[in-house]
Amino acid sequence: MKTHLRIRLLLAVLTCLSYSLVEAKASRPAEENDEYAANYASQPRFRALLHYEPGAEEAHVQFDKQAINFFRRLTYGDGWTLDVTTSLADYPYERLKDYSVVISLNAMPGGKSQREAFEKYMENGGGWMGFHASAYNDRNTNWPWFNRFLGCGPFYCNNWPPQPALVECNQEHPVTVSLPQSFVAPASEFYQWKPSPNENPDVEVLLSISQKMYPFGLKDVVKWGDFPIVWTNTKYRMLYLNMGHGDEAFIDATQNLLFVNALRWVVSQDPHGDPFQK
Amino acid sequence: MKTHLRIRLLLAVLTCLSYSLVEAKASRPAEENDEYAANYASQPRFRALLHYEPGAEEAHVQFDKQAINFFRRLTYGDGWTLDVTTSLADYPYERLKDYSVVISLNAMPGGKSQREAFEKYMENGGGWMGFHASAYNDRNTNWPWFNRFLGCGPFYCNNWPPQPALVECNQEHPVTVSLPQSFVAPASEFYQWKPSPNENPDVEVLLSISQKMYPFGLKDVVKWGDFPIVWTNTKYRMLYLNMGHGDEAFIDATQNLLFVNALRWVVSQDPHGDPFQK
Amino acid sequence: MKTHLRIRLLLAVLTCLSYSLVEAKASRPAEENDEYAANYASQPRFRALLHYEPGAEEAHVQFDKQAINFFRRLTYGDGWTLDVTTSLADYPYERLKDYSVVISLNAMPGGKSQREAFEKYMENGGGWMGFHASAYNDRNTNWPWFNRFLGCGPFYCNNWPPQPALVECNQEHPVTVSLPQSFVAPASEFYQWKPSPNENPDVEVLLSISQKMYPFGLKDVVKWGDFPIVWTNTKYRMLYLNMGHGDEAFIDATQNLLFVNALRWVVSQDPHGDPFQK
Repeated sequence: MKTHLRIRLLLAVLTCLSYSLVEAKASRPAEENDEYAANYASQPRFRALLHYEPGAEEAHVQFDKQAINFFRRLTYGDGWTLDVTTSLADYPYERLKDYSVVISLNAMPGGKSQREAFEKYMENGGGWMGFHASAYNDRNTNWPWFNRFLGCGPFYCNNWPPQPALVECNQEHPVTVSLPQSFVAPASEFYQWKPSPNENPDVEVLLSISQKMYPFGLKDVVKWGDFPIVWTNTKYRMLYLNMGHGDEAFIDATQNLLFVNALRWVVSQDPHGDPFQK
Repeated sequence: MKTHLRIRLLLAVLTCLSYSLVEAKASRPAEENDEYAANYASQPRFRALLHYEPGAEEAHVQFDKQAINFFRRLTYGDGWTLDVTTSLADYPYERLKDYSVVISLNAMPGGKSQREAFEKYMENGGGWMGFHASAYNDRNTNWPWFNRFLGCGPFYCNNWPPQPALVECNQEHPVTVSLPQSFVAPASEFYQWKPSPNENPDVEVLLSISQKMYPFGLKDVVKWGDFPIVWTNTKYRMLYLNMGHGDEAFIDATQNLLFVNALRWVVSQDPHGDPFQK
Repeated sequence: MKTHLRIRLLLAVLTCLSYSLVEAKASRPAEENDEYAANYASQPRFRALLHYEPGAEEAHVQFDKQAINFFRRLTYGDGWTLDVTTSLADYPYERLKDYSVVISLNAMPGGKSQREAFEKYMENGGGWMGFHASAYNDRNTNWPWFNRFLGCGPFYCNNWPPQPALVECNQEHPVTVSLPQSFVAPASEFYQWKPSPNENPDVEVLLSISQKMYPFGLKDVVKWGDFPIVWTNTKYRMLYLNMGHGDEAFIDATQNLLFVNALRWVVSQDPHGDPFQK
């Protein structure tokens, strides 16, 4: 693949040069004449660390395995490096800081030292992309920093069973600019939080379950409330996505695009520079 | 799962109480302060009976098996009870009447006694959700009540092969309020009926194949006609969905949401009370 | 299936006749009263030849196998005939000319004689539907006719890895009239061409990657440029679709409808007459 693409790149550059000599269209911006329209990586652009809990509930592990496959495919051609772990205990701050992003699949830092390493990582410009139960917290969690980081209160309630839901997008963000104004997200269990992320002025909510879904559920019926499911706390380089329960998260191209956009945006904000412009 | 959710419920209620003590936001409706936003079932809310014919044509059985899996997943956590049968002969009226809804997958009541039991069930407030060939009837069917029940004439024509189709939604119904104005439904064979359900003033049509699909088909080409595919005859607690041929009915989140909404709505109209408000 | 459908057709015609006798609604167009709304084929309407290269790169063969399955299903009921080959060497012009359409999956005519046969076929009213690498050409291709046929220059650049993309439709064509104004196409590698098909006045572009996707890619990042991915060169009976890399091309009902529409339209323009009106 790599060799194949290098040859392609070479051919493309040659072609580009020959055309620019022949055509020299004055009506286009200078950059389009002078520069190749694409930027091909010659080495991995960034490193990501993904962690999950193989002992989590079955529907969470189903999602985790599909998500690992999804992210693994995005590394094809060695555009970036994905390390996968089941234990953050092996990742003190000194190791974490070499990653542009930590991807949390239904898992969170476990004990005191893991939490401290993660806090230090995030407070020093680290990147985070969390799914579903990675943000689940309640009265037993005892981690006040985590709620300041998430920008909301603890878990409040959920629909049950997992089912598809109409979601509405705030399209004024790089993560959602290429998404439709609304779409039906594939089946998942969705969580409400209290206080809601919408009550925090530092939070930018990107996707919410539509109010048209109420009453929402067959067993556990959510009756009202604003219902953000994807947001960023602008005080950190982080994005939370509430999807992540069961084996249907990757059946929909629109939601898959959301996931790619989310990864790309968190990484592009790296304080060491946007790796996609290298 | 059940225990897990009970603990969650308990935690959520405790959290809710503590927040309502601390916050007491006067600007919200009273109910949102005083009451938990979700209603969790402590026992199955309703009973559903699903029937299908294992000896039907292959593409119908493909759909049936996927549909059974789809509905089974919606029962996770014992929010409701799903009984599956291949023979309505075992279900006289006295048994049928305990079900909030009968789900017919490409099958209809067979002989005289099954038909009589079904008629009595539906005339006495029973609920029905039928797919595809469950409504197929022609000059040999000899069941005039069934056409009055469906609200339309017999099968008239179909596209072939199964293929996706642009459909348009009447969004003014609880079943379709959370669906887009139009979407592309996954591959199926679709039936026209004559007279069309649209000619019956008691019928509310919820989805139709778009006129933009004409001419529609590669082998059997439907050339014109109004083309309802999901409707309810408001004289009964029923909803018919024409999808149900082949193995692609559940690849699309939007159509899956339609199916969940349809089940939920038929059940919610139960004359014994809306089970989702229990 | 065939017998089953013939009986259905007979019943439908009888039903139609009986209703038209009873109803005779003067308000409808005459044709709707007098004529059956569907046209059922009694023999295959046309012949298609599909070719692919089993030795191509893995992600291309993945697509090819799924595409063969997709088109095979569209022949169910013998509405048309699909021949599949891995070598166009067996298809001189005299054989090609009996096909209403040649479907090229990530493959193009190989040597001089294959190219000459294909040229003669297309110059004499042949039909073509090409996917992905079937149009890939660069400085080494040495086939100037092919670029005149495609209506654009050689391959210029691509995104990498394969990912979903927001696409915009020109809805003023039979292929796209039943598609939404925009949708998210499933994961693929997409190619830009230079000069772009948009610069050719004979080309009608039907789908383009949205400008909202820029910068587009994680490894190979496309930064700008107009980005047509489906078009027809109106000088030929041809349609090119850039999708065709990996195993996700058929997960989306909207894109599947595009593929069916594309096949149907190319075939319907056959200079020997529209086979769907037979």
